[in-house]
Amino acid sequence: MFEPRPLEHTLKKKAFEQQAQPLRQELLEAQFDLAGRNYPMIILLSGLEGAGKGAFVHRLNEWMDPRLIDTNAFWEHSDEEESRPYYWRFWRRMPRKGSTGLFIGSWYSAPMDAAVAADSPGDLAATCARITQFERMLTDDGVLLVKLFFFVSSETQQLQLKEEAPHNKQIPRVPASATYCEKNYDRILQVAERMIRATDTPTCPWHVVETEDPLYRDLSAATIILRALRTAAKRADDAAPQKPATPPAALPGAESNYLARVDLDQTLARDNYKRALKKWQGRLQDLAWQARGRRRSLVAVFEGWDAAGKGSAIRRVTQAIDPRLFKLVQFAAPTDEESAQHYLWRFWRHLQRDGQATLFDRSWYGRVLVERVEGFASETEWRRAYDEINLFEWQLQEHGCIAVKFWLHISKEEQLLRFKAREVTPHKRHKITPDDWRNRDKWEDYRAAVEDMVRRTSTPHAPWTLVAGDDKRFARIQILKTLCRALEVNLSQDRPVRQSPTGKQVKRADGRQ
Amino acid sequence: MFEPRPLEHTLKKKAFEQQAQPLRQELLEAQFDLAGRNYPMIILLSGLEGAGKGAFVHRLNEWMDPRLIDTNAFWEHSDEEESRPYYWRFWRRMPRKGSTGLFIGSWYSAPMDAAVAADSPGDLAATCARITQFERMLTDDGVLLVKLFFFVSSETQQLQLKEEAPHNKQIPRVPASATYCEKNYDRILQVAERMIRATDTPTCPWHVVETEDPLYRDLSAATIILRALRTAAKRADDAAPQKPATPPAALPGAESNYLARVDLDQTLARDNYKRALKKWQGRLQDLAWQARGRRRSLVAVFEGWDAAGKGSAIRRVTQAIDPRLFKLVQFAAPTDEESAQHYLWRFWRHLQRDGQATLFDRSWYGRVLVERVEGFASETEWRRAYDEINLFEWQLQEHGCIAVKFWLHISKEEQLLRFKAREVTPHKRHKITPDDWRNRDKWEDYRAAVEDMVRRTSTPHAPWTLVAGDDKRFARIQILKTLCRALEVNLSQDRPVRQSPTGKQVKRADGRQ
Repeated sequence: MFEPRPLEHTLKKKAFEQQAQPLRQELLEAQFDLAGRNYPMIILLSGLEGAGKGAFVHRLNEWMDPRLIDTNAFWEHSDEEESRPYYWRFWRRMPRKGSTGLFIGSWYSAPMDAAVAADSPGDLAATCARITQFERMLTDDGVLLVKLFFFVSSETQQLQLKEEAPHNKQIPRVPASATYCEKNYDRILQVAERMIRATDTPTCPWHVVETEDPLYRDLSAATIILRALRTAAKRADDAAPQKPATPPAALPGAESNYLARVDLDQTLARDNYKRALKKWQGRLQDLAWQARGRRRSLVAVFEGWDAAGKGSAIRRVTQAIDPRLFKLVQFAAPTDEESAQHYLWRFWRHLQRDGQATLFDRSWYGRVLVERVEGFASETEWRRAYDEINLFEWQLQEHGCIAVKFWLHISKEEQLLRFKAREVTPHKRHKITPDDWRNRDKWEDYRAAVEDMVRRTSTPHAPWTLVAGDDKRFARIQILKTLCRALEVNLSQDRPVRQSPTGKQVKRADGRQ
Repeated sequence: MFEPRPLEHTLKKKAFEQQAQPLRQELLEAQFDLAGRNYPMIILLSGLEGAGKGAFVHRLNEWMDPRLIDTNAFWEHSDEEESRPYYWRFWRRMPRKGSTGLFIGSWYSAPMDAAVAADSPGDLAATCARITQFERMLTDDGVLLVKLFFFVSSETQQLQLKEEAPHNKQIPRVPASATYCEKNYDRILQVAERMIRATDTPTCPWHVVETEDPLYRDLSAATIILRALRTAAKRADDAAPQKPATPPAALPGAESNYLARVDLDQTLARDNYKRALKKWQGRLQDLAWQARGRRRSLVAVFEGWDAAGKGSAIRRVTQAIDPRLFKLVQFAAPTDEESAQHYLWRFWRHLQRDGQATLFDRSWYGRVLVERVEGFASETEWRRAYDEINLFEWQLQEHGCIAVKFWLHISKEEQLLRFKAREVTPHKRHKITPDDWRNRDKWEDYRAAVEDMVRRTSTPHAPWTLVAGDDKRFARIQILKTLCRALEVNLSQDRPVRQSPTGKQVKRADGRQ
């Protein structure tokens, strides 16, 4: 891929200007066109040191409208980033629909540094598979992802690094950089080639840009971006008009029957409940403090049928944990800032730092529950959501988050009793709406959705717990117990805090942070 | 204020439960009522160590609906907070309208620690005046601010600190805390009393809560909150319906004539322009790097008449600065998340970290320009905005930000020429809308607003520069020059990086971070 070849591509200044003028105009037009579209562009700028990434970014901001470009250099890792899953830093920089995010450094940087530093870059393949999955998730959602790799020969690289402008000293680079790059040139290229081959897909192809000649570099990279913009616009224009919401369809696979197997007859007498509540709340309180001491964070998801007792169960949990140690977030309709992003974005933004618990009252599972059943998400969208969710939760556990997920299950009969009780109790009447009755009519559709959800997203690191909810007392204790056990098991593993694949934990071969 | 007095207030457990039951119910109701209102509540919890702040927060989260309370403990200072003006950390935690933010520690914490540590707490009075101004700004906007100070006697404090539960060790407290508190008890109380007296205002009064008896403490603090909620709700119900937008009125004060004094005949020949552009852009590039090296951040505001050349002037600035060193933000209508906050919130959220430049294409001055003239803000609102803006910019400079503000001025005749030129130039036609013509009809109103704005908000640390814009070339160079000089002057002052009044810079007397 990177075979040395003669310097074919050089441009005279005059020829450059002749070509640049129309290109700039077309880029601007394509950019304004993008502003009216319902997808964003991410330009991912990778490559060797000294290949002129910074200079090209400067050029692009000059040629295009800088008000519509958000340039993100992932130079410094803030402690807020380090204390959350690796991908959080990228999610918080995601461009809104219609705008452009220019990423210098990206989700490739840390794995690549690690692979170069490692003796055997064994898990590079696995990492690349995850990246491919992540990128497909973005492009499935409409993101236009343009991946550029800036290549430079070792000779030019040395010239660049040694002759760099004085202000470049400000860039966090060790002085030994030139020497380091010279020594490791072949190795870095080898790793880059492996990564590129493994993550070059039809929807997210890599573009290798030759950078020996800066003028040629800028023209060719900008042309790639222009072409990508146009292709995406054309595809959007040609796309068949959105079909009406598809009716819920059964997913293929063995018919499961998880819910039917929940023993809803389990109960807990009031006295036993009181004792158990005290015991498990006390234990949870301690464990939450221990988790803080160990910088482990809990991510707990609460889903369930209407009137299953979700709210009151959550309160038994929040009563136990010191309010300084948790955030409880609940979800209704997305805000307009949330609607301008991938559906997972609004959950990522609430993730707390290491040592803190995030409690989700409803969650990303809305995608495969209410959005599926009510047709708010297309069949394509909710069908791919299972994989997207599994990837998300894998990213959580990779960082060291402890994930626990509850489905509060009740029988259809019990729900009816509770609905009716709500209707006749004055201070509970606000809790029952026509929506609840409508949802009840779709019980079977929801049941199928829950079965699929459990089958597809119960993983070793983020298992579902189906809570027997007909007896509220029993349900609450089951939840408290499950949380405690998850914390106990995970805290006993003495797993080191894994900051993230970047930064403090992974030592870079050149000694850089 | 804190004279020792006999322990009058103790409650039997039974009496407590009798009083707590109805109080909880009423609190919940008041909280649900708040959820439908267009203002938030901030509960600010201050007080002595060992007075039970944590325990009360726990109780309140148990009594009220935790989904509507956001508890913020400002325990740890993240580097993202430290590298921005002090108040940024509070703005990012501001509760949305209808919700409650519970602040343990607040804008009082750092000044109070500093005053206790200082030999002569001289500038405490000035700090308190700023705080009063800040709080008035919040309450003027409708925020319900409840300030609680938890008082405890030295004896009880010692008992509490020595007997605290094991998990309390996790709270960032030095082991010497009990000793420190004993030694400094009187001094801390003295400082607290001064602060409370200086910031106790009719709209933001302090409530001192006795905490010897935890049951009495919780009941009385919760009752204060309930009363505040009710009073605010009643006031909102009684408020006269919003009057229609008031017509723009002249502000009192000497009639100023800043704009008329701008010499619009100044021009720059093309050749001189090219040379000057190269020179000043080069200098700006270097200075931006120097600012990064010194961790100083630039905040530049661009305002001006329609068609004054704001966009193209900004591009001459962004061309000069490395895109990794600036963020350019432009403002249109607020998003719904922004509308649920104070109008300054959406500008605070974009402030970049130390060493970075934030360029505002339109800004908080919209409040006293378009919002004033078009009646989007009431007269009361825009009249008080001058002080609010001055406070905001004072907070910027206190941290070490370098603020530069441009008004691009053109003559009414020049604007007409440009409007007409836009109408006949195909690729510029999208830049002229009926709105532009309507604004032009209100030239006089805008002119008065600009005069008032300059007179009221040109301060030594954030002066306005009125740019002579009839000649675009002259204007661009004037802007570049002004930016360079502001950076040069500030960078030459060798001012130490002031992180903020908290944390790393101010040493706490007890050696805590």
